[in-house]
Amino acid sequence: MDNLALCEANNAPLTPITFLKRASECYPNRTSIIYGETRFTWPQTYDRCCRLAASLLSLNIAKNDIVSVLAPNIPAIYEMHFAVPMGGAVLNPINTRLDAKSIAAIFRHAQPKILFVDRNLETLARATLHLLPDEEQRNLLVIFIDEPDRPKRISSNDPLDYEELIRRGEPSSSSVARMFRIQNEHDPISLNYTSGTTSEPKGVVVSHRGVYLNALSVIMGWEIGTFPVYLWTLPMFHCNGWNLTWSVAARGGTNVCIRHVSAPEIYKNIELHGVTHMCCVPTVLNILLQGNPLDMSQRSTPVQVLTGGSSPPAALVEKVQRLGFQVLHVYGLTEATGAVLFCEWHDEWSR
Amino acid sequence: MDNLALCEANNAPLTPITFLKRASECYPNRTSIIYGETRFTWPQTYDRCCRLAASLLSLNIAKNDIVSVLAPNIPAIYEMHFAVPMGGAVLNPINTRLDAKSIAAIFRHAQPKILFVDRNLETLARATLHLLPDEEQRNLLVIFIDEPDRPKRISSNDPLDYEELIRRGEPSSSSVARMFRIQNEHDPISLNYTSGTTSEPKGVVVSHRGVYLNALSVIMGWEIGTFPVYLWTLPMFHCNGWNLTWSVAARGGTNVCIRHVSAPEIYKNIELHGVTHMCCVPTVLNILLQGNPLDMSQRSTPVQVLTGGSSPPAALVEKVQRLGFQVLHVYGLTEATGAVLFCEWHDEWSR
Repeated sequence: MDNLALCEANNAPLTPITFLKRASECYPNRTSIIYGETRFTWPQTYDRCCRLAASLLSLNIAKNDIVSVLAPNIPAIYEMHFAVPMGGAVLNPINTRLDAKSIAAIFRHAQPKILFVDRNLETLARATLHLLPDEEQRNLLVIFIDEPDRPKRISSNDPLDYEELIRRGEPSSSSVARMFRIQNEHDPISLNYTSGTTSEPKGVVVSHRGVYLNALSVIMGWEIGTFPVYLWTLPMFHCNGWNLTWSVAARGGTNVCIRHVSAPEIYKNIELHGVTHMCCVPTVLNILLQGNPLDMSQRSTPVQVLTGGSSPPAALVEKVQRLGFQVLHVYGLTEATGAVLFCEWHDEWSR
Repeated sequence: MDNLALCEANNAPLTPITFLKRASECYPNRTSIIYGETRFTWPQTYDRCCRLAASLLSLNIAKNDIVSVLAPNIPAIYEMHFAVPMGGAVLNPINTRLDAKSIAAIFRHAQPKILFVDRNLETLARATLHLLPDEEQRNLLVIFIDEPDRPKRISSNDPLDYEELIRRGEPSSSSVARMFRIQNEHDPISLNYTSGTTSEPKGVVVSHRGVYLNALSVIMGWEIGTFPVYLWTLPMFHCNGWNLTWSVAARGGTNVCIRHVSAPEIYKNIELHGVTHMCCVPTVLNILLQGNPLDMSQRSTPVQVLTGGSSPPAALVEKVQRLGFQVLHVYGLTEATGAVLFCEWHDEWSR
């Protein structure tokens, strides 16, 4: 018997962080995240996010402070989509494909208080920091994200890392209550930069209400049922993964996180975990064609694929569909809080 | 390519009347309503609602005035779920099973300006009016709803009827713009009375925002895809038909309206129109067992049935499912803007 978070929200502020608490209560045995050998349940993800948020508060993160993250689709960046706004701060996910100069420009504009960095991107992060004025460097606390199964740090001289913040975070019941007490649904939840194809990256502030409604819009437009198994091929730094970060929690789904997007990695995860949904920019549709495809004809339903941006060529869509994928085309933009147009299939088109 | 009304709503007030405009634009060829031989498309329903709203405005209906309706599940009461709030007024659907005394109590409390009455309920309406003080009777404009295919009135001495209001309504582009300009999403959209099982019926005011969110909640909780064919067995006067009045428009679905709920009527409409969804209180589940069931084994998917109130006995659910229905149990209450708990199926329950 599941309480849809929507209803209590009639008068309460609309915010997607309620999806997390609901998932931990309604789906206590369901897997929230799979990443290699690492697995979490929804209650574990909820607990980790509460701890991280408590740690952010203890680091004196104040309302509307910016917390940046430079990471591929690893569990930490997923958790930060909840934990950072639970701490009252604003998430700023950074495109890992940008060069140091572009990232430095974003930092000068966004003025983050904390930067979380995936350990494998340490070189890029350090190059970026060197481009910043000394004072900005001093004001920016850098915290590295190591693999979740890495041994704990031994000496207290080691710098703080992500897992350490989660371990030391101790949410009291009053601080948890505070985390969910969003004052105004129009408050910012994330600061996203456009990819900068036309000029300097532009900052787009999205609100709790905006992403809540868009996360539901994606569920409706793509007809995502309960318990999707969602493969993270689309970067979460790309417009919050088209808000699917939050949609998957709303549906009690499973996030399959992968560090590298390649055909073998995609097909391996589809087979291992029974992936039902994934988002692919046209480039990734091409990657699907390269692989050594599984025999997906045994599956009762195809893997649902959302593709965005410019319309992919019909021939490409046909080839991908023959491999066992069902493609839905959407259009959206960072400035509009994600996907805004869905090409819903009309039965008569099949004739 | 369909614009989900949700997105434009990020900052615009949340109101389900936007679902109607969107349906008329995105699904211009889809059937909105089937009622016997009568059929409308979404653009026709949109046009009829604009005309009715314009007529209400010309009758000097002001913001937050109450417009009552006493009717079974005929097209008029469906249209009024949009047209009345488009005119700025508040819909008050009345339980047709109440006696004159109870309805009079509601009128004394709600103080409606207009009462729309299905012609077949004229006796009940007149008995109710006789119980009201003279002044209240004089202040209440009564408009009858005849069958849509009834001949037009001939003499101007005939009293106004529903179809006449639609014919004479002439929405200008500025009045249409006004109809969609809801100032505050917390404004009332409907005044619903509880069934009065515990004491006098209690009035519950629901807001544009509340029913918008609940209409989406039902779509998600019941996993209603695009283009459902919804059979109106649940009365629309019952908590706005659990908000499915608005959900069906949001999904571009088809409303199959029936005047009487009986097994032959239900099975006939399932067969004729390919019904995909219906809501049944436990009594109606029992009605399903009485009929002369079709062979529904040829259907690719069962008819989805939402049942509410107290949990139906397992044996009853099993019998109904063997007939080709898939039952989902929900719990809700008028005071909570409809269904708030959905018993989502967990795969492991099938083992």
